Amino acid sequence: MKKFAIAIHGGAGTILRSAMDAQKEKLYQSALREALLIGTDILRSNGSALDAVEQTVKNLEDCELFNAGRGSVFTSDEQHEMDASIMEGQGLKAGAVSLIKTVKNPVQLARLVMEKTDHVFLAGEGAERFAREMQMESMPKDYFYTEQRYQQLLLARSSDRVILDHADELKDKKYGTVGAVALDLQGHLAAATSTGGMTNKRYGRVGDTPMIGAGTYANDAGCAISCTGSGEYFIRMNVAFHVYALMVYGRLSLEEASRKVVMDLLPSIEGDGGLIGVDRSGNISLCFNTEGMYRASYHSDYGEFVGIYRE
Amino acid sequence: MKKFAIAIHGGAGTILRSAMDAQKEKLYQSALREALLIGTDILRSNGSALDAVEQTVKNLEDCELFNAGRGSVFTSDEQHEMDASIMEGQGLKAGAVSLIKTVKNPVQLARLVMEKTDHVFLAGEGAERFAREMQMESMPKDYFYTEQRYQQLLLARSSDRVILDHADELKDKKYGTVGAVALDLQGHLAAATSTGGMTNKRYGRVGDTPMIGAGTYANDAGCAISCTGSGEYFIRMNVAFHVYALMVYGRLSLEEASRKVVMDLLPSIEGDGGLIGVDRSGNISLCFNTEGMYRASYHSDYGEFVGIYRE
Repeated sequence: MKKFAIAIHGGAGTILRSAMDAQKEKLYQSALREALLIGTDILRSNGSALDAVEQTVKNLEDCELFNAGRGSVFTSDEQHEMDASIMEGQGLKAGAVSLIKTVKNPVQLARLVMEKTDHVFLAGEGAERFAREMQMESMPKDYFYTEQRYQQLLLARSSDRVILDHADELKDKKYGTVGAVALDLQGHLAAATSTGGMTNKRYGRVGDTPMIGAGTYANDAGCAISCTGSGEYFIRMNVAFHVYALMVYGRLSLEEASRKVVMDLLPSIEGDGGLIGVDRSGNISLCFNTEGMYRASYHSDYGEFVGIYRE
Repeated sequence: MKKFAIAIHGGAGTILRSAMDAQKEKLYQSALREALLIGTDILRSNGSALDAVEQTVKNLEDCELFNAGRGSVFTSDEQHEMDASIMEGQGLKAGAVSLIKTVKNPVQLARLVMEKTDHVFLAGEGAERFAREMQMESMPKDYFYTEQRYQQLLLARSSDRVILDHADELKDKKYGTVGAVALDLQGHLAAATSTGGMTNKRYGRVGDTPMIGAGTYANDAGCAISCTGSGEYFIRMNVAFHVYALMVYGRLSLEEASRKVVMDLLPSIEGDGGLIGVDRSGNISLCFNTEGMYRASYHSDYGEFVGIYRE
């Protein structure tokens, strides 16, 4: 029997049950469900994994709750710099964009880079210029303004620190990124990731999200992976491709490979965060070494799962 | 007995014996020897692999013959956009810069990103700003002007094509990049890569050179790798880390792993180019699927090798 599967994340970090209230919890859960449903509907009606991850991530970008697209955090310059990438596992085609300031949906720009240029990765003003050529929807700066994000910047500045997402206290770390991975009824895999970066980050910093092999990877021969976490460590550990390599060359299962990377290799260099993965058999992994990760999944045989905390 | 080893490259592509003359050949050979000697001297006097690859690549950046630093090609906007990265294999620390316009030695800027920031990758104006803070030497635009490179741009424009380096005819492809990998007497590995990109490339394009895991990777548990080729394919195939993964998880030798990636996996998606690698035993691989690759190596037991063509 043919099957399909999708998993999504909305970031990992210090997400404690004690710091949440019932209303906030419901908000996140219903946002995750809404995004998941978009991908699920595409996959169920025999759409491609690539369309499913793109449309799901687009929905998460449009949601203020998550640090990507509309909900992006502020850089030290009171700017927004968004990154995104997408990859499909059949032909290993990929697209990525970085340091995007005005484009409403960076994940869609990444897909256009993949499909309409000879390049994989466009950054900065060159990427914005390409977006205009493609007549992509761009937004004024105040579309990306949210009061909560601005307060975070002021807090981060006052302590002269980079903080990684909307942390209520500075000891909290939260890695704001959104992502999706999917297996479609044709047996193809795809992955997409999008982020608004780190609050108070240095202008021009590129994290793991637009790095194919670090934040995003898909290959029909193995798995599709989307990451969220302390991006620098994910780059140095080549996390997304690392999981693939452990599966295909190290003969581990998706779950074993994910755990090896997230629970063992990443902590060995003090990296934290998590990832979502799906393999060609439809197995799903939702793996993180932080207190929580906003996550959800749907499998055509087993139905829906939505989670926030570790347990 | 302790040993050291170093390998360098100056780009791969359609480098035909028939298109070279004896004088040009000598120029390239002596430039390669000069760079190699810098790294060799550092390693012989118990310097670090990291210093050796940095200083060697710096020398290649200063040489007009190669597409990096001074000899960088022109973008479609008559600009220069340079990329570089560096990684050390003991702590897996890494630094990378992209879309650099004025800095004399991008590889040194990459090392400063690694050592003086919390980030791995800075791009564009943010990277230039960081360079100024670090008081790095920057050069006026005409330092990067070479008549030959400008003629290449005009040629590429007239045919509305991206060309990959100084090709005498448009059917030629040459991937201009420089790189170095080294094993030091302490048993540590390092890799560095630097490039001036592609002639007539789209403004804002990021290739594999600054992508840790694609163009550059080093891990004392396996190998150090620096790549040169059709960058987009090297990103999609995660070439540098792929060689590492095939060694460590697939139990291949450095040479077997390099050949698998360069001769089999890359061509499967129509990627061409090559790589240099060194493992922790001092084995060296100089592997390419093009007509030639400017390359040289030195091993404390076996001495020097300099090569240009396939045979």
